[in-house]
Parts: sequence; C-alpha cells; structure tokens
Amino acid sequence: MVNFKVILFIIGLLLIIEAFFMSICAPVSYFMGDTDAYFFLISAFVTFLTGSLLWLISRKHKHNLGKREGYIIVTLSWAIFSLFGALPFFLSEQIPSFTDAYFETISGFSTTGASILNDIESLSHGALFWRSLIQWLGGMGIIVLSLAILPFLGIGGMQLFIAEVPGPTPDKLHPRITETAKRLWGIYILFTVAEFILLVIGGMSVYDAICHSFTTMATGGYSTKQASIAAYPSPFIQYVIIIFMFLAGVNFTLSYYALRRRFSRVWENEEFRWYLGITLIFTLAIAIGLFIMRRGDPELCFRDSLFQVVSIITTTGFATADYLEWTPLLAFFILMLMFVGGSAGSTGGGIKVVRILILLKNSYMELKRLVHPNAVIPSRLNRVAIQPSIINNILAFIAFYILMAVIGILVMSALGFDVETSIGAVAATLGNIGPGIGDVGPADNFSQVPVFGKWFLSFLMLVGRLEIFTVILLFTPTFWKK
Amino acid sequence: MVNFKVILFIIGLLLIIEAFFMSICAPVSYFMGDTDAYFFLISAFVTFLTGSLLWLISRKHKHNLGKREGYIIVTLSWAIFSLFGALPFFLSEQIPSFTDAYFETISGFSTTGASILNDIESLSHGALFWRSLIQWLGGMGIIVLSLAILPFLGIGGMQLFIAEVPGPTPDKLHPRITETAKRLWGIYILFTVAEFILLVIGGMSVYDAICHSFTTMATGGYSTKQASIAAYPSPFIQYVIIIFMFLAGVNFTLSYYALRRRFSRVWENEEFRWYLGITLIFTLAIAIGLFIMRRGDPELCFRDSLFQVVSIITTTGFATADYLEWTPLLAFFILMLMFVGGSAGSTGGGIKVVRILILLKNSYMELKRLVHPNAVIPSRLNRVAIQPSIINNILAFIAFYILMAVIGILVMSALGFDVETSIGAVAATLGNIGPGIGDVGPADNFSQVPVFGKWFLSFLMLVGRLEIFTVILLFTPTFWKK
Repeated sequence: MVNFKVILFIIGLLLIIEAFFMSICAPVSYFMGDTDAYFFLISAFVTFLTGSLLWLISRKHKHNLGKREGYIIVTLSWAIFSLFGALPFFLSEQIPSFTDAYFETISGFSTTGASILNDIESLSHGALFWRSLIQWLGGMGIIVLSLAILPFLGIGGMQLFIAEVPGPTPDKLHPRITETAKRLWGIYILFTVAEFILLVIGGMSVYDAICHSFTTMATGGYSTKQASIAAYPSPFIQYVIIIFMFLAGVNFTLSYYALRRRFSRVWENEEFRWYLGITLIFTLAIAIGLFIMRRGDPELCFRDSLFQVVSIITTTGFATADYLEWTPLLAFFILMLMFVGGSAGSTGGGIKVVRILILLKNSYMELKRLVHPNAVIPSRLNRVAIQPSIINNILAFIAFYILMAVIGILVMSALGFDVETSIGAVAATLGNIGPGIGDVGPADNFSQVPVFGKWFLSFLMLVGRLEIFTVILLFTPTFWKK
Repeated sequence: MVNFKVILFIIGLLLIIEAFFMSICAPVSYFMGDTDAYFFLISAFVTFLTGSLLWLISRKHKHNLGKREGYIIVTLSWAIFSLFGALPFFLSEQIPSFTDAYFETISGFSTTGASILNDIESLSHGALFWRSLIQWLGGMGIIVLSLAILPFLGIGGMQLFIAEVPGPTPDKLHPRITETAKRLWGIYILFTVAEFILLVIGGMSVYDAICHSFTTMATGGYSTKQASIAAYPSPFIQYVIIIFMFLAGVNFTLSYYALRRRFSRVWENEEFRWYLGITLIFTLAIAIGLFIMRRGDPELCFRDSLFQVVSIITTTGFATADYLEWTPLLAFFILMLMFVGGSAGSTGGGIKVVRILILLKNSYMELKRLVHPNAVIPSRLNRVAIQPSIINNILAFIAFYILMAVIGILVMSALGFDVETSIGAVAATLGNIGPGIGDVGPADNFSQVPVFGKWFLSFLMLVGRLEIFTVILLFTPTFWKK
C-alpha cells in the first residue's frame, strides 16, 4: 500500500515554501512601479492555504517513506508546483490562457526555458522576477533530486558513479541527504551571487543581473529581454554568462572539491574531462565554420560559437545568435549537442555526458571483445569497472529517451508540424533546453503550438527533467501492484 | 599475422563466379535486341582474368582461415565485387561516370536499391538485367553471411539466437556452413521462381517478372520501370510482390521450418510475431490516415499502406505511392520503419526487429528491477534468458548505428543538404532501403549528390549491409595488432 498521507504532508510543506517565495515578488513589483503586486499576494495566499490544508489533514501520518512514495512525491511536486506557480501569470491576465501559464511555469520549474511569450518585455517586473525565480527554485530542486533523492531511488546519472561499486565511493559527498543538500545549495547560492556581482560590474542593471543569475545557474535560460542575451552586446557580460553556464553544467560535487582546492579530484573525473573536451571541440568546429561563413571578426565568431555551444550543451538556452541562420552543418552540430546535455549532478538536462561516455566506452570495448572473444574486458569509468547492471540501466534509459522522442515527434507531426520542427520541439523540451530547431528555434517561441500540444510538451519537460524513469514508472502496472 | 594469401584465393574464386554471371547478361542483351552484349563479354573477361590471376598467385596458401581473415574477406568481397560489377555500366557508357556506376553497383550488391539513374528505362535490357541480377546475388551473399559466416565471427543478428545460450540451440539449422547455405539458397531460389510464375500469371512480361523477382527476394528494390511498381496498377501483381517482400524479410530458417510444415517453430519465434505485428499495426494506422486524407477507395488506401509499409520495413524500397506527399505524420511513420528493418537471417537490412525487441524487453525489465531491486529478473527471448553479453552487444550495435548515422548526417549537411534530406539519405543507405525522405524520396534519386557524397554513401551502404561491426573493426588498431 502506498502511504498517501506522507505524500500529502510533504507536498503540503513544499507548497507553503512556494507561497513564501511567491510573496517576495509582491514587493519587487511594487517597488519597480508595477500595479500587479496584489496578484502575487492573492496567489501566495491560495498556495499557502492549500499547503496548510494538506499539512493539516496529513499531520498524523506514519513516517515510512519508501521508494514508491519517493517516485510519487518527486513527480507530483514538480507538477503541482507548476499548477500554483502559474497563478500569478494567469490571475493578473499577463498570460490570459491557463494552458499557456502552466506551460510557461513548468518550463520554468523544469529549468527548460521554452516560452510561449511573444513579447517578454510586456510583462511586469514582478512577473519576470517570478519567472526567473521559478527557474532558480527548479535548479535547487534538481540538485537535491539528482544528488540525493534519485540515488536513493536507484536511478539517475549520479547513480552511475556510486551504486553497486564495491568499496569506497569516491564521489559520494556525504551520506546524509540534508547535509549534502545544504552544502551543494551553498555552492549554488555562492555561484549565483558571484555571477550577480560580475554582471553588475559589467554594466547590467541590478534587477536584470539578479534575474539572469537565477536563470543561468539553473541552466534555465529565461531572460528579461525579448532578444535574450543578444540584448547585451558587451563581451564581458557574455563571457561572464558563458563561465557560469559552464559551471552550472558541472557536477556540483566537483565544484565543492574545487572550492576546497582538491583539483586533482576534479581532473580525475572522466565525465568532466569529456564535458570540457566536447565543449572545446564543438566550439572550435563551429567557430571555424562561422568564420568561413561570415569572413568577419574572429573574436565574435569564437564568442558566438562558444556561447551557443555552452548554452545548448548545458541546456540553458540563452541566445546571442540565431543558429538556424547558420549553414545546415552548423545547425546540425547544435542539434547533436541538444542530445548530449550537461554532467550528472548538475542542473543541466539532456541524456548527460556520462551516459554518452559509457555508451561509447562499451561500444569500443565490444570491438575489442570481438577480436579477443575469450578475454574478459570490462569498461572502466574513473578507473572502476562498470557493472553489467549499469550497462542495462543506460541501455534502458537511452531506449526510453528515444521512445519518448519518437512518440513526441509522432504527436507533433499529428498536430501538423513539419519533421524538422517536430524534432526540434521534442529535443528542446525532453532535453530541457528551451529553444529548438525549425519553427521553434531561438528567434521563435512555442505560442503557435495548439493547446493539446502544449500540455503534451509540458509532460515531456517533466519526463526529461525527472530522468525519464521516475515518471514512466508511475504508468506501469508493476509499480502499483502490492 | 593476417593470412593474406587465403584472402586473395577466396576473392579470386568469387570473381570467377561473378564473371560467369556477368557473361549471362550478354545473350540477354543480344536476344532482347540491344547492341551492348559486347561490353558484358569484355567486362566478364576482365573480371575472369583478374580472378584467375589472384587464384594463381595465391594457390599455394595455408588453409588457416581465422576470424581476422573472415572480416577482411567479407568486407573486401562486397567492395571488389562492386568494382568489377560496375564495369558493364561504365564501359558501355550507359552510366558514363565511374562514381555513378560504382554507386549503382554497390547499391545493388548491398541490396539497398538507391539509384543515381534519372531515366531507368533508357538502359539496355542487358544492363537492367545485370542491375537486378546484382541484387539477387547480393541477397544470396547476405543469406550465407548472416546465417553462417557472421555467427562464426561472433556478430550479427542471428548470433543473438544461438551464441552463448547453454544447451540446445533450437534455431541453428545445421552446423556445417555449406549444408546450411545450400538449404537456404534452395528456399531463396524456390521463392524467386514462385514469384516469377505468379507475376507472369498476373500479366507481367517474362523479362520484367524475372528482374522483379530477383530484386524482391533480395529486398533490393531495383525496378525495370522508372515508376517502380506504380507502373503495374494490377492489385494482383502488387499483392504478389507484397507477399514475397514480406517473405524475404523473414528469417530464412523459419521459412525452412514452414516448408517442412513445422509451423509451431515459426509461431514460437518472438521476432517473427513482432515483425508481423509491427507490419500490421503500421499498415492499419497508415491506411486509416490515408483514408482520412484521400476520402477515396478503402481497398486502395489499405493496399498503398501495406505495400509501402512492407517495402520499407523489409528495406526493399519498391514504391507504388510517394509517401512524401502524405501528411508529415504518415511520412514519419515511414521514417520510423526505416530504422526497424527486417528479421535477423533475412535479406532485409536496418537495425533488425530482434534488436529493437531485446531493447524494449530490457527497458521494460529495468522498470521492474527499479521497483524490485533485489529480484534477479532477466529478459527472455523465445523463453531463453538473454545473456548480459548480448545486451552489451546490442548496446554497442545501436551506438555504432547512431554514431554512423550522426557522422553521415554531418557529412551530408556539410555537402549543403538540408536536415531532412541528410537524415533521409543516411537512413536509406545505412539501412539498405533505397529511397529516403526529403530530396532523396521515392520520386527522386541520388544523382544530385556530389562525387564525394556518393562514395561516402557507398561506404555507408557497405557498413550497414555488413552489420556495422565487420567494417568498423577493420579501422581499429586492435584488429591489426598481433
């Protein structure tokens, strides 16, 4: 029997926290001269009331919190957070359709960054602040999810490092969830503050600097400007954002080690080296391509390339250039990166570098095994042999990822979109990137998608964010059987 | 040390056989009233001379034929066969560019069916006969390759059924290669003759019936008509071709059992049931879609759907309708089938049903394992537990398939093709299908591809046909190390 009371209890508590953050937006709106502060207060009140009610009716729960409850809480909390988070947009009629408001909010909490807004700057300061804060909170959720909760549930990218490895587990920071979460949140906040200061030094307004710092560290990519980061031509600002996007795509455990000056721990991590390598190689290739195409300023070609590569591989989705206006080859490079994603244990989405890495290692080892069929040759990650169960898990993860992508493309095609846009919309939402290719590229948005399509893509964002298995499991009979 | 002498010896023998089949085309051309019989004789002579020379210099070889030699012979024989097979087209100037002639020939031997011909019917009867015969010979090669040689090398779809399974190996027909080959070739010839007779009864000319029977059973898809099978509106002819395309996509071992009236053996085979199921479900879905689109004759909608589904899943590539003129959803259904492919042990290409099946089974089992982490739950195929080594192998196969596809799409994009055409061209050649999507759809051909692209796609056809590993292995240092 699933212990529903404990689920309601935790969801209730989380809603009370959400209400608190929502209410912060009221003074922001008020002091920036907008008239919608009232809507934040009423939304926060409704959220607080619901949360308290849930808390009250489930107060006397039993404390047995099993895996099943874990899966349900994780999925429900993201879906319900978005339901209440959409209220300020919807009630203030800044996003008049509830479907659109929900899409925009779950796109925020899942740190995707796909938008239905045709004119971002028409929103109030409070609304744009909430939009950015949602992503920052989503990023906090992801950190505790990927580094603490999912390993407990037995899934997720980090599990690849720690599960079933006999002996020491070098990358497991601290066994206790709350301790781990606190330390990593500390780093998350530290990086956010550091970026904020640097952006202000670079000449960005305090308000914009806060909002962009929130959405950079979450690899979310919501901007307060219609033109995204292209609105800030300052190379300093763009390089600052590049650095923090890159950091947000690194396993936060490694950042912890780096801050403690244990750099060898960082460099020994194979996923990090590959993440860095892929970023550099793609940047170089695209920069050369851009230089041949434009025959212009080499620094700008390099910066445009680096920005877009880091923005897409980390699944942030900020833009300083429209890669759809590049040649098909350069656009395809970007499409490839959409499927890679950031590191495990970062706020980035996608398949994650470590899975691609193990996939390639296993493939290469299989070639060796074919030549030497009697030798036992295991693949190794960070010098430790990869267990067969990990291979099974990755095979299943990638199969489900492809399956969800195929179903997604089918649905988008059925709604009348061409093959390119369908692929782009699915890659951008399932991978939690934001902008796609085709008609949902960086210069466009998702407003044209019909209502059903928006709910479906919202579902894909949730599935992608919660590492596929979490959500899919809830749809299997096995999960609900005694 | 690789035993090169034995490689040359076998290639020499195979070239002598090719010369024999080439010379057959001379009387065909002569009696059909064409003037190019001479070119077949001179091509056959050159081929025979080269074969004899190779045979002579390598006569005194040692008989140790190891795995390494096996890989090299398989890859070289397909590449060299195409080199000599292109001679009649090139010497008679019916295909004036050698690149084009080679592309057309390796597309034939690999039973792909991708063509560079803008006007098929302008070729002589002898040339079109040779073009069809090439595919038929390629199909013969595939049967012996997939059911006898590749299992010996430790790779290929059939290996999934027989290797490392302790105890009885129910689907291994006969242990000795020559015996197995003879029996399965008997079935291949029997089916070809049966189709020929039925096509003639349906009103097709004897010449066209021979050519189409050759290319159906090879799942090659070369036609003697510019309009492909659309040139034969007769439902009888189309249904006959559908049936034999379907049979060509079945594991030939199962056909052997069926002919011996051991039908339970056929039905017990999970891959067969899935192959049948996928075919029926996609046919139904597309037929309904076509009926909604056209609001016309339901039988024609069903037949058009069934024909295209069977033609693509078996990777034949015959066409009675242009699926690119259907809605994006229906076209995407076809694109999905391009990646499925026929059964292991058939002449069909693609990833193969059994690999997709094991992928899905493993994924579903992984969900069960997540709910019951301490239970040992192996996936089963035909009631036998699937070994971890098989999972590794499939993961590697699919990874290499995707890797080759990604590299292929990159190359095609670099040549200036749009994303859709690039995906279409790579899916069609790597999967040995023939027609793709975009500008290389069933109403178009590959003549527009630049020279480098044609050689590259020729390479992809070879890689796809030889089950990826065979060719890739030759490019690894491990393979060549002592």
